[in-house]
Amino acid sequence: MLALSDAISRGIVPNAELVLVVSDRSDARGLTLAQEKNIQTLAIDRAGKTREEHEAEVISALRKYEVDVICLAGYMRLLSPGFIEGFPRRILNIHPSLLPSFPGLDVQQKAINHGVKWSGCTVHFVDDTLDGGPIVAQRVVPVLDDDTEATLAERILEQEHLLYPEALALVISGKFEIVGRRVVAAGKS
Amino acid sequence: MLALSDAISRGIVPNAELVLVVSDRSDARGLTLAQEKNIQTLAIDRAGKTREEHEAEVISALRKYEVDVICLAGYMRLLSPGFIEGFPRRILNIHPSLLPSFPGLDVQQKAINHGVKWSGCTVHFVDDTLDGGPIVAQRVVPVLDDDTEATLAERILEQEHLLYPEALALVISGKFEIVGRRVVAAGKS
Repeated sequence: MLALSDAISRGIVPNAELVLVVSDRSDARGLTLAQEKNIQTLAIDRAGKTREEHEAEVISALRKYEVDVICLAGYMRLLSPGFIEGFPRRILNIHPSLLPSFPGLDVQQKAINHGVKWSGCTVHFVDDTLDGGPIVAQRVVPVLDDDTEATLAERILEQEHLLYPEALALVISGKFEIVGRRVVAAGKS
Repeated sequence: MLALSDAISRGIVPNAELVLVVSDRSDARGLTLAQEKNIQTLAIDRAGKTREEHEAEVISALRKYEVDVICLAGYMRLLSPGFIEGFPRRILNIHPSLLPSFPGLDVQQKAINHGVKWSGCTVHFVDDTLDGGPIVAQRVVPVLDDDTEATLAERILEQEHLLYPEALALVISGKFEIVGRRVVAAGKS
């Protein structure tokens, strides 16, 4: 979130404005960090609400702030089909692996345990599958023999901070098309 | 096969000698190409044989020529557990994707259809799973918006020709260990 904020401040994501940071946890550190940067924040707790009620509150806030593109970061729940349909091709997620390898959780440890020599990160459109929507952009990183989950996660995170602004810039530019499940530059299919 | 042969001739794979090229098709072009390089070849047809009988003939030939390491290339059958156990950690295969993404056939088209931005190739030890054994080495290549199956396959093949000699050199050196399913340099685990 901070990497996106910084990239937008530095003009790396043309025509982007970070209008709202939402968390489902009021104690999320990201909210404090965003407030320090004078970004509007909102905590919408889940406690005592059904998923539908909670999502309705989030959607209402996103509409109020006229949010065009939603960038998930560490959002640990699947969004409902209704939520996704409300923002078609406008919800992005970042995942710390080269999808389709290693969806889900504990991703870096899975990559190490599997013995891959390259991993990376993926920004994809969110659909109703787990980490399965069309891929906008990916970056690769080597997996080293002496990597731990922590050292690999750190190396991937550096690339995530570069990848998410790049992917967001493409999506905001509108200069892409989705062919099947391929995201390609407009006119290239 | 020719790339391995050339790499061995150029001294890129220390202590390697290409002693035998085997195909299960007597009309395989690789046999002719190997003969032109004065490499010993053998066609062991499957016709009229059970898998066990066919494999027994192949194993007998490998033993006769004192083959230490077997490099599969485009061998379209699963080897039986008995075959694999006969050459523990000494059978390699090369696969034109970044495993565990896209095992099996039609790999480049699958990668394009899935919309990945990076693919590559993998050399792995052969076990009794499809393209599932411990990974020895991988190389990455970008997938471009205007790639076809043919252009992507060609870009990956260039890297396969570099990867297979590298991986074989590591295996022949013996300077590795297998920890779980990770192949790491000896002493690095």
